[in-house]
Amino acid sequence: MSAAQPCVALLSQSLDMRYLVPAFEAACPGIDWRVRDDLRDVADIDAAVCWQPPQGLLNTLPNLQLIQSIGAGVDHIYADATLPEHVPVCRAVDTDMTAGMIAYVAWAVINRHRHFPDYVANSAQGLWRESPIVPPGEHRVGVAGLGRLGMAVAQALATLGYAVHGWSRSPKDRLPAGVTGHHGAAGLPDFLHGIDTLVCLLPLTDETRGFLNTTLFAQLPRGSHLINVGRGAHLVEADLLAALASGQLAAATLDTTHVEPLPTDHAFWRDPRILVTPHIATRTSATAVARQTLANLNLVRAGQMPDTRTTRANGY
Amino acid sequence: MSAAQPCVALLSQSLDMRYLVPAFEAACPGIDWRVRDDLRDVADIDAAVCWQPPQGLLNTLPNLQLIQSIGAGVDHIYADATLPEHVPVCRAVDTDMTAGMIAYVAWAVINRHRHFPDYVANSAQGLWRESPIVPPGEHRVGVAGLGRLGMAVAQALATLGYAVHGWSRSPKDRLPAGVTGHHGAAGLPDFLHGIDTLVCLLPLTDETRGFLNTTLFAQLPRGSHLINVGRGAHLVEADLLAALASGQLAAATLDTTHVEPLPTDHAFWRDPRILVTPHIATRTSATAVARQTLANLNLVRAGQMPDTRTTRANGY
Repeated sequence: MSAAQPCVALLSQSLDMRYLVPAFEAACPGIDWRVRDDLRDVADIDAAVCWQPPQGLLNTLPNLQLIQSIGAGVDHIYADATLPEHVPVCRAVDTDMTAGMIAYVAWAVINRHRHFPDYVANSAQGLWRESPIVPPGEHRVGVAGLGRLGMAVAQALATLGYAVHGWSRSPKDRLPAGVTGHHGAAGLPDFLHGIDTLVCLLPLTDETRGFLNTTLFAQLPRGSHLINVGRGAHLVEADLLAALASGQLAAATLDTTHVEPLPTDHAFWRDPRILVTPHIATRTSATAVARQTLANLNLVRAGQMPDTRTTRANGY
Repeated sequence: MSAAQPCVALLSQSLDMRYLVPAFEAACPGIDWRVRDDLRDVADIDAAVCWQPPQGLLNTLPNLQLIQSIGAGVDHIYADATLPEHVPVCRAVDTDMTAGMIAYVAWAVINRHRHFPDYVANSAQGLWRESPIVPPGEHRVGVAGLGRLGMAVAQALATLGYAVHGWSRSPKDRLPAGVTGHHGAAGLPDFLHGIDTLVCLLPLTDETRGFLNTTLFAQLPRGSHLINVGRGAHLVEADLLAALASGQLAAATLDTTHVEPLPTDHAFWRDPRILVTPHIATRTSATAVARQTLANLNLVRAGQMPDTRTTRANGY
């Protein structure tokens, strides 16, 4: 182990993390990288780059100095109760990741607001049939979660002319122009009131698990559209099916589900009001992961804490 | 006829213009309005509000002072060769109209760039299958036409992170951040080079009729996506079918066609690479039409020219 040649382990139960290797080699020629199946001497490992890392593994790396998520979320890391608590866990930040999320959510909001599923179906059938046009300023979009991604999405939707309301656990000092803020449990009813499209971009924590449930849906106007780009565990899946069956919700766009990939026999696939996409709303670029991992490792070695350090207590 | 009670004729061959009446009555209680089938004494008529007005009719109104389009385009008015040339023809301007256009184009760009037609099809079939993710900064969008709508669309796409290039007949002094400008016939090859998505928002003039043709498509990279939100006559329809058949174009999103509604037996309906929408990208609000008509009429009566006056020579 030397400062010049860091040793980085790429750890995931679900992804083949070798897609990161070219970016690490470009960022640090001659870097020593290891994959889960061939970690060799675990005492070498300085940093672990993780997506759903195997339970208990991080705790077996004696000289680990940094745990780096490849995503904006870190719930998949804190899910391991045996995590070495003295090692900082950092989330990834990436302008491409932000841009990807903005594009996904903008598409999903406009798609239902402007009745594109009807136009697509009509085009396939040769029907020239107009749907009602509601100006975006009269369409209220609620963004639950005003972290870096939530804030960027709220700002972009406001730029597109939507009436945007945001909700966060604690009050935010600065909100983008055109975004009305709400916060805390006390602010939730006002936030939900009158929302046409609800976007979930919360971090996954013990507080937010199951946030999207029957009680919450009942506070939305009848016929709302739900977009979940947070985590599958934010949503009580049975409650979504019930809300669609009753008409309380008109549609859902889900980029994330409890189990991923979503099993072939899952009811979500069979409901035409639900669009499931395979967790593609956004992706951190390998280059950004490699650069941030190496920069964060240098900071930690110099006794400093990266800005992107998270805490188990916050969950983000 | 009096200044207090203007007489407004609502003239269209294709639309039932009575949808405008409540907005006119709200803007000017007691207003005298006439529809095409019941114009009564044509000498009463001060202003004509038009969408594809019947040929030759405007020339029969002896005291006409204003011809007001309900759209941003005026080609449907200048199509009448007998137009009284001394009467100003004004286009409509409306922030809701701009917002509607931005939303339509943003949806259409993201839809193909991020492979949503595949995700929608996969979701209906229970397939969890990822498509490639290209950052928006690496997806080049060309906006042909930098009038009010084109400029707003270019700016919004740049805000969403796309690499935006704009093309206009004459050079533009100020372009939004992130938009690279090109102009004139000499600037067209550079503009078209490397475009992944081409958006047509040109005015329809003798110069731009048939702009979207085989020669132009050949200057785009293979596999581009065409979005036409200008006018149907910008596109040579047979050339689009040929470009899709050869693979030179991968897809087209058309909000406008030569004949509207598009006839049931038209080939566009049968090509799954073409999405046809029924001229709904945007709509001027009735309130905006009523207010602008009355304000423009007052200006003309006071001997002033509205900013939105167009000329036949420009075509906009």
